[in-house]
Amino acid sequence: MKAKVRILDMYSGRYSVFINEKEAKKAKLHPDDLVKLETGKKTVYGSVTISNLVKEGEIGISKDVLQLHNFSEGEVVTVLPSGAPESVRYIKKKMNGEKLRKVEIETIVKDIVDRKLRDIEISSFVTALEINGLDMDEIAALTIAMAETGDMLDIDRKPIMDVHSIGGVPGNKTNILVVPIVAAAGLTIPKTSSRAITSAAGTADVVEVFAEVSFSLDEIKRIVEKIGACMVWGGALNLAPADDITIKAERALSIDPVGLMLASIMSKKYAMGSQYVLIDIPTGKGVKVETVDEARALARDFIELGKRLGQYVEVAITYGGQPIGHTVGPALEAREALQALMSGTGPGSLIEKATGLAGILLEMGGVAPSGMGKKMAREILESGKAYQKMREIIEEQGGNPDIKPEEIPIGDKTYTFTAPTSGYITAIDNKAITGIARAAGAPEDKGAGIELYVKVGEKVKEGDPLFTIYAESEARLDQAIVFARRAEPIRIEGMVLQRIGNI
Amino acid sequence: MKAKVRILDMYSGRYSVFINEKEAKKAKLHPDDLVKLETGKKTVYGSVTISNLVKEGEIGISKDVLQLHNFSEGEVVTVLPSGAPESVRYIKKKMNGEKLRKVEIETIVKDIVDRKLRDIEISSFVTALEINGLDMDEIAALTIAMAETGDMLDIDRKPIMDVHSIGGVPGNKTNILVVPIVAAAGLTIPKTSSRAITSAAGTADVVEVFAEVSFSLDEIKRIVEKIGACMVWGGALNLAPADDITIKAERALSIDPVGLMLASIMSKKYAMGSQYVLIDIPTGKGVKVETVDEARALARDFIELGKRLGQYVEVAITYGGQPIGHTVGPALEAREALQALMSGTGPGSLIEKATGLAGILLEMGGVAPSGMGKKMAREILESGKAYQKMREIIEEQGGNPDIKPEEIPIGDKTYTFTAPTSGYITAIDNKAITGIARAAGAPEDKGAGIELYVKVGEKVKEGDPLFTIYAESEARLDQAIVFARRAEPIRIEGMVLQRIGNI
Repeated sequence: MKAKVRILDMYSGRYSVFINEKEAKKAKLHPDDLVKLETGKKTVYGSVTISNLVKEGEIGISKDVLQLHNFSEGEVVTVLPSGAPESVRYIKKKMNGEKLRKVEIETIVKDIVDRKLRDIEISSFVTALEINGLDMDEIAALTIAMAETGDMLDIDRKPIMDVHSIGGVPGNKTNILVVPIVAAAGLTIPKTSSRAITSAAGTADVVEVFAEVSFSLDEIKRIVEKIGACMVWGGALNLAPADDITIKAERALSIDPVGLMLASIMSKKYAMGSQYVLIDIPTGKGVKVETVDEARALARDFIELGKRLGQYVEVAITYGGQPIGHTVGPALEAREALQALMSGTGPGSLIEKATGLAGILLEMGGVAPSGMGKKMAREILESGKAYQKMREIIEEQGGNPDIKPEEIPIGDKTYTFTAPTSGYITAIDNKAITGIARAAGAPEDKGAGIELYVKVGEKVKEGDPLFTIYAESEARLDQAIVFARRAEPIRIEGMVLQRIGNI
Repeated sequence: MKAKVRILDMYSGRYSVFINEKEAKKAKLHPDDLVKLETGKKTVYGSVTISNLVKEGEIGISKDVLQLHNFSEGEVVTVLPSGAPESVRYIKKKMNGEKLRKVEIETIVKDIVDRKLRDIEISSFVTALEINGLDMDEIAALTIAMAETGDMLDIDRKPIMDVHSIGGVPGNKTNILVVPIVAAAGLTIPKTSSRAITSAAGTADVVEVFAEVSFSLDEIKRIVEKIGACMVWGGALNLAPADDITIKAERALSIDPVGLMLASIMSKKYAMGSQYVLIDIPTGKGVKVETVDEARALARDFIELGKRLGQYVEVAITYGGQPIGHTVGPALEAREALQALMSGTGPGSLIEKATGLAGILLEMGGVAPSGMGKKMAREILESGKAYQKMREIIEEQGGNPDIKPEEIPIGDKTYTFTAPTSGYITAIDNKAITGIARAAGAPEDKGAGIELYVKVGEKVKEGDPLFTIYAESEARLDQAIVFARRAEPIRIEGMVLQRIGNI
């Protein structure tokens, strides 16, 4: 049937197509049936809602659909029922434990991006991957298909470096130091980051405190070709869009199949044209990868996948057992990162990790001799060259390069927890720290978060401050305090326990 | 937040909850988030749509929700974000290949029925079952949980018999003969049936040609206690509602995990209070179960599951390699079944199967001596007692008991295919026959379908009629003809092929 488009003021989280009751009956369409809308150029798939909010001869579409195709009000489209997508057969093949061919994976990814596959099929695919896995041939095909069904960047500079942390450690503002250090050494590093998903601040959330992070690929190309670096939000780009879709099912099921994680990360690097990629795998209690053995296995997969993609990949297994630096939350982390760049110094965990990672990239990119990267990175940081590059990045991304750390606004509702006893700090619970910062409002409330005064191994006296919670409202502060009281974020091992050995 | 309910004129195929944009922002709700609506008595779960079609202080709900709870316009409800359902953990356990405990299965089923699990989680569960399976303990727990989360029937007669065909054979109107034969022998058989899902006519679609099929459980109880039988549509009842929900994912993925199939069938028998259950497993090319070995394995599972449920189960493995009788499609099948009941005779495939199954039930129910059931069934059919019982059923179910087969309207647009060559009929393709009948409009168009003039093994001469297509419109007739020309529904092995051996 042909129908005029009416754009409905709603976001349903899926591609909803409203069809009048009579017309649906005539066309034998039922609620949630898959239909295709054909316009001159493009075919868009959607899910039927039957409703008399639209008249005969009209179809209503939810605004979600506009992300994929810019329908105009009153535009005439052809609405057709859609049969079962071909790729369902390949999903079944994976259920049966069979290896998928390249073209089969490509079809699945294309159908995901076209929204021909919906929650049911995508969830089944993700579940089948979680159970039956993917081998390296399949992962490579998946990675390339995910990249090629989205936009890709072609920067006229070589070599292109990239760094990615697989995440899970609170306060990990490391890459905000790494990127300007590497670019200050003359290398090119077009860094895209995500916003927080389950953490208290993604790199993009932190950078957004002093600069814009949403740019088009053309703008990124211009910035990077001019200054050699950027720090932007990947979500504003159409990089490997299949990943943004499958992640919804992964999150609902709280699974993260290894093959899909590898493809998710590397497809974005591939789309950005990265040639030298450093992967940071934080390891320790309460992060994604808990043991060094697991980290090593994952590292081998990243390196092998890189080879298949024509990328040179190195992996750094880093300590992720407690937060990096002293702050957690967008504005607090922005302050700490900016302070470190300006002064060339800062908390050991931040400076060591940042110069360590940057050093590897300098060696990979051929600007530092083997074994000299970290030293060179530290010199670049201490010399102020990294700060200078950061100012360029901030300026190109529409921020104020003269901003001082203390000018960055943070939450004015605060509460400080003190040590209930004297002793050594034996553990800081990553998940609890993240939970408190999120309860305080991070990442949506930029000024919310935590400042930590202690790290593992340090000695405290009863009554010493342990950490301060920052929030933008009393209500949020109270929530965070309640959460903190339940969560035991910091464990102090006092004298009592130590005496056991003396008996 | 508290809000007034507005019922929106729409069916979205899921439980949509419309929330005003400002309010959603305040409550940090995003499109497709799971929320719970709390009323005095009940908690209902739904998926967020963000829209200014509703005002602040209001929530809109799609009419789908009314199936679960009868909200009234303007009713005040509390809307709360809902965390991840607990049962997601158990679905993950099944992904890991672990055995689920009874209470875990109960939680999953309860969350499905409450709509706390949505497409993503349900599809993951179904996929995990397809891959990792269920053992008999799990299947029994699933069956009972599915029955007990729905309505259950308690009929004051003993013993309660039941018969179920796992389907796949076109033209299978057998049970329309079996039920009145068994009831005429004094046994009780409250038969529920489904409508066609992928076939051209479900038993409920055929019965509906001469009687009502939608009744409440109370009405069914009254009918069955009066006349010992009914033939109603199970879908009108709230029997094992989890099954109706999971079937959506199974259909989209075209999978049917064995454990879920067993639980689906047997939960409904359990809910109807059936004590003696006969399962018909048609076996042959183009039906669900293709080999006798598979059928035997499945039979053992049915019998074992029956034991766990306190039911006595027998299984008949029947020939399903070609259609039963000569007709396919609701009205045509209704004519054939009624004709057979009235005359006590009919096509061999129909009469043999019907009296065979009925005979087993007569023996199971203790009214026929062992080995004498089929003979007794045939006598009941030939004596007209089965027809008399059928008249009672039709009358109690609001139909006209005096209806004659030739008074049942069938499609007046017809087209007859003839034999293109002389020879023996070597195959009739079940799937092609179903496809043609559906193309002609069955099961929605009651008068659409096929009349077959030949069966496998019969000899035809060139030009002899093979089958006639019936449709209610020229357009549908044309569609069916086109489909039939492509599909090769009937294969004739003529002289040409036989001559090859003579060379």
